[in-house]
Amino acid sequence: MKHPVISLLTDFGSSDHYVGTMKGVMLGICPTAQLIDLTHETPAYAIAEAAFALAQAWRYFPKGTVHLIVVDPGVGSSRRPIIAEAEGHRFVAPDNGVLTMVFDKVKNCSVREITASGFFRKPVSQTFHGRDIFAPVAAHLARGIAPARLGKRIQDPVRAGFARPVQKAPNHWSGSILKVDRFGNIVTNFVSETWRHLAARPFRMKINRHFISRVTANYASAKPNELFLIEGSSGYLEISARQSSARDQTRCSVQTPIDLLLL
Amino acid sequence: MKHPVISLLTDFGSSDHYVGTMKGVMLGICPTAQLIDLTHETPAYAIAEAAFALAQAWRYFPKGTVHLIVVDPGVGSSRRPIIAEAEGHRFVAPDNGVLTMVFDKVKNCSVREITASGFFRKPVSQTFHGRDIFAPVAAHLARGIAPARLGKRIQDPVRAGFARPVQKAPNHWSGSILKVDRFGNIVTNFVSETWRHLAARPFRMKINRHFISRVTANYASAKPNELFLIEGSSGYLEISARQSSARDQTRCSVQTPIDLLLL
Amino acid sequence: MKHPVISLLTDFGSSDHYVGTMKGVMLGICPTAQLIDLTHETPAYAIAEAAFALAQAWRYFPKGTVHLIVVDPGVGSSRRPIIAEAEGHRFVAPDNGVLTMVFDKVKNCSVREITASGFFRKPVSQTFHGRDIFAPVAAHLARGIAPARLGKRIQDPVRAGFARPVQKAPNHWSGSILKVDRFGNIVTNFVSETWRHLAARPFRMKINRHFISRVTANYASAKPNELFLIEGSSGYLEISARQSSARDQTRCSVQTPIDLLLL
Repeated sequence: MKHPVISLLTDFGSSDHYVGTMKGVMLGICPTAQLIDLTHETPAYAIAEAAFALAQAWRYFPKGTVHLIVVDPGVGSSRRPIIAEAEGHRFVAPDNGVLTMVFDKVKNCSVREITASGFFRKPVSQTFHGRDIFAPVAAHLARGIAPARLGKRIQDPVRAGFARPVQKAPNHWSGSILKVDRFGNIVTNFVSETWRHLAARPFRMKINRHFISRVTANYASAKPNELFLIEGSSGYLEISARQSSARDQTRCSVQTPIDLLLL
Repeated sequence: MKHPVISLLTDFGSSDHYVGTMKGVMLGICPTAQLIDLTHETPAYAIAEAAFALAQAWRYFPKGTVHLIVVDPGVGSSRRPIIAEAEGHRFVAPDNGVLTMVFDKVKNCSVREITASGFFRKPVSQTFHGRDIFAPVAAHLARGIAPARLGKRIQDPVRAGFARPVQKAPNHWSGSILKVDRFGNIVTNFVSETWRHLAARPFRMKINRHFISRVTANYASAKPNELFLIEGSSGYLEISARQSSARDQTRCSVQTPIDLLLL
Repeated sequence: MKHPVISLLTDFGSSDHYVGTMKGVMLGICPTAQLIDLTHETPAYAIAEAAFALAQAWRYFPKGTVHLIVVDPGVGSSRRPIIAEAEGHRFVAPDNGVLTMVFDKVKNCSVREITASGFFRKPVSQTFHGRDIFAPVAAHLARGIAPARLGKRIQDPVRAGFARPVQKAPNHWSGSILKVDRFGNIVTNFVSETWRHLAARPFRMKINRHFISRVTANYASAKPNELFLIEGSSGYLEISARQSSARDQTRCSVQTPIDLLLL
């Protein structure tokens, strides 16, 4: 790739120098890289939320992209750094489940433990593997080294239990919230494709003390403040309210359960 | 252009993957693009504030820049996507008035409705035209396709009524706030050039219960905490306070009216 | 440099158009520049915090990088714009002490007052030297002009006192806080190397009404909630508490003074 792309996803925030420092390290190794922020506002240590953001975004990047994920509560412990390859994309991350949604969606995924310390920045600090391990490895990949040079294949990368809704009774599913976006739209873990029949049948979805009973095709066709379901661009059903915040209306958080009754 | 520039202005915030996703799409189409964030912290659906930010910034970019604006409360409805061309710059945006301040400032502006769906990402989602329509169109423009290939010229793009101050009486104008910046400086809608004579004559400007009666040439010449008017870099008169926040002192918001009395 | 790097450090925040505007100006001058954000969330006018972020990050960028720092409470006054050169890096900043920590750490640093107004953007505004002076100068440097063309060498750049504790009496030093990190660790301005002897002698450090009397080699050797000193990765002594936040315990802010008594 003449203009290799590296996407960055961390929980470092934007008020510290950490992300900029990683970029400085990468440009020293791969000066032509296109460094694209996915987000750095993942809540600290929130592996599930990072996994969701990555799952939403990675396919929209060009093949050859290196996705660098540093949400790493286990830094300094013995958790492995890994590289995964799938559909022409590369993923560099700690082995803590943050790639679960990638593994779930692709057919063939080669995963390696990164052991080739010759590509690390020296000395490797105890607390900032983003700068000393993950960033330089991502930049070397973007520059063209073969993943096989980084370490041996492994068969047991960590897969986290990110929920699909659980069936509680013949007509009752218990789901959860994957993400609340800044507009207050609530991304559920009901996959749109699986639940498309909802639009054509009576149902009742309950979140806190609020009920939703309609799937609409677009925001404009809803009444102001009405809560409704919509097939969001995420691939999951989203609870939304027209030009207002579904989160504020329902007072939900990422921990709030969602119940679906088919009537 | 060998290194085409695309500026991005949205209300997507930086904690979601939306902006990164749009950038991934664009780099797939135009790998050499320089992708520059104008801001993504525009309050949700705040067309006027986005229009102001764009108006302030666009001329400082090199000719040939494509400005991509996605503040789009009407996504999914029938509002048109448009492209405008003025002074060598291109603007890709929903037709909702967000380009009003561009239209106001330039002499010749060619505007087209974007209808050439061959340049869109398929399938086009109901909720994320930024990713599926605006970003790919901006990237194709940056790569070199002619605007004429995107759709036909229109004569009636939406122009929003962003206020200039209204004259209430021979010596009384009623104005408004365009923006409060993070330092607490209050950008009024009094155009500096039009109101330059204020510096040489007695006046009283009222905002909440506070009065300003002086225009100063620079921050350093004001007393600490004094409220004063200054010709800001915005082209509008700004209410400022030296090394403190004019917003905090006046407890104003973007909705607060401003009254000017010539004495 | 074929792909020159410019790092940006400001207190402009990310909700305004200021940073984007500076980038537009720079790309007009140096279209191939890699523009990397260090941070723009430095608290307004916080020269010490900007100096610390810069000191932590700059060495991780490739040689040849131009570091552009615009934290500039004196904009519009007569403070000088300067360029410093050290170890292959260039720094463009207002002369207000923000480069103090660079000066302290390098052996040979050439500093020039920037007077070559031919490289400025015209007209130069009173309030936005970032756009009109610092950004264009940084871009011209990135493009290859020699620093000597920007102005004459000076011997008296401002060195701020925040970088070192002040000796008040033979056994009494008065120090300050450079940064409180997201875990509540308090980075003091006591340089680890200089104060290494503290570990071997009795002392009492006071912050608000709290006392620290021990330097530990690692977190594990401290008692839960005990406040202690540790050599942080920043190069400065840090006040930490095992399994809790030293900031929350001491209720300190960046303004809180620190007193050290050698016993």
